[in-house]
Amino acid sequence: MGIHFVKANGDEVIAELTIAAQHHQAYGIVHGGVYSGMIETIASVGAALWAQRHSQTVVGLENQTSFLLAVREGKLRATATPLMRGRRTQVWVAKVLDDAGRTVADGKVRLISLDAGASLAGEAVKLKPKQP
Amino acid sequence: MGIHFVKANGDEVIAELTIAAQHHQAYGIVHGGVYSGMIETIASVGAALWAQRHSQTVVGLENQTSFLLAVREGKLRATATPLMRGRRTQVWVAKVLDDAGRTVADGKVRLISLDAGASLAGEAVKLKPKQP
Amino acid sequence: MGIHFVKANGDEVIAELTIAAQHHQAYGIVHGGVYSGMIETIASVGAALWAQRHSQTVVGLENQTSFLLAVREGKLRATATPLMRGRRTQVWVAKVLDDAGRTVADGKVRLISLDAGASLAGEAVKLKPKQP
Amino acid sequence: MGIHFVKANGDEVIAELTIAAQHHQAYGIVHGGVYSGMIETIASVGAALWAQRHSQTVVGLENQTSFLLAVREGKLRATATPLMRGRRTQVWVAKVLDDAGRTVADGKVRLISLDAGASLAGEAVKLKPKQP
Repeated sequence: MGIHFVKANGDEVIAELTIAAQHHQAYGIVHGGVYSGMIETIASVGAALWAQRHSQTVVGLENQTSFLLAVREGKLRATATPLMRGRRTQVWVAKVLDDAGRTVADGKVRLISLDAGASLAGEAVKLKPKQP
Repeated sequence: MGIHFVKANGDEVIAELTIAAQHHQAYGIVHGGVYSGMIETIASVGAALWAQRHSQTVVGLENQTSFLLAVREGKLRATATPLMRGRRTQVWVAKVLDDAGRTVADGKVRLISLDAGASLAGEAVKLKPKQP
Repeated sequence: MGIHFVKANGDEVIAELTIAAQHHQAYGIVHGGVYSGMIETIASVGAALWAQRHSQTVVGLENQTSFLLAVREGKLRATATPLMRGRRTQVWVAKVLDDAGRTVADGKVRLISLDAGASLAGEAVKLKPKQP
Repeated sequence: MGIHFVKANGDEVIAELTIAAQHHQAYGIVHGGVYSGMIETIASVGAALWAQRHSQTVVGLENQTSFLLAVREGKLRATATPLMRGRRTQVWVAKVLDDAGRTVADGKVRLISLDAGASLAGEAVKLKPKQP
């Protein structure tokens, strides 16, 4: 998708994406899936990094994304911060801004915590994701 | 993203995607953004095709996606159908199934109707999207 | 809120509500919170009854409700069915119909499973809810 | 439901509710529908008051509420602020805090703007809601 991480830790994740033709839907504005995808990515990375501190990992449950402003070109900058980080689940919120600093999308991701060794899609969960 | 349309009209949209390395998140399961993106794509195409019949187009407002089952490989098949198609907004629901016919993600997209000539991101809306 | 249960088990929950003045917002149509509340109630009851079979209980994580049609009077009938019932979480979907059989609201509730004795708001979880 | 408005204008709405038996679900914690309902109420009031300035009114499209912390008693204080206020739709976000200042629920409401005289549930829309 072309996401570049600017910052990534368990308290905040920032990533950027330069809009290209592949990010457009049929009317030439950025596809909603790009915003949902950016938000899912940065929220998951933040939640996973925080969970590692507690010997857990996370897997996404729900993604809710609101599209606020149609954008055609430029650079998108997305920031995710935790709303709630618990032992059972985490909730992260994220905003995507355009070049002019306008909020163009806003989302929320809920993730469930898994202990090392929990079963996920037929394999035991490992605690070390690949670094973003 | 590698989506292949099997069927696309204003009453139903079906699309498939063969899982590849680019669709995985750090733990080797399909990234949530892939499901949100597939759901956004097929719901938008269906809603746009229905809106065309009424000389309108649509733009997405909200995407809500639930992740139900972690999947590593194979083919994903997504189907979108309308829950409500009105003059002001449309709501489409979509399911993503894996090779074994299990529902792995479920989503809902709300779109707003725009009349031809309405302003969107600084341009007048045209009614003809490129065909998927 | 005036909800009357027609049916309640771990596979389906049906409830009705006769619209009264207390359910209206300022414009005389049924308040969105009534739909969210009915959906939360019946989804939670269904999920709790299913969880009991496995010596677990549930607590709600997320409620997503779409308002499809404005209604002023009559009887509302809401039906909840499971989309996914797992060991870690459950997802239930619900529809609210009006007297004419039209779907006026549609929602989804995600709940997390808790084992007996888990801590919730400072108390140990008990498995027996009061019957609806 | 027992909501008391502390402040209500088109830029911010604050309301309080003292938890009583009627707000509890079967396990003695505040029912999720109470949070969804509070959030729906204050977001709608704020959006309607802002829309009035532009000779429009609003009706809710979507309510998304996350439950963050289980609470048994005390006073809840909810605050709604606009995330986006446009000519076509508005998005308001809201937080519910408990006595200790902890965020116990967090939600988002999307509303569509209606011009005076638009048809809603068989009646022409009027611009003056009853004051909360």
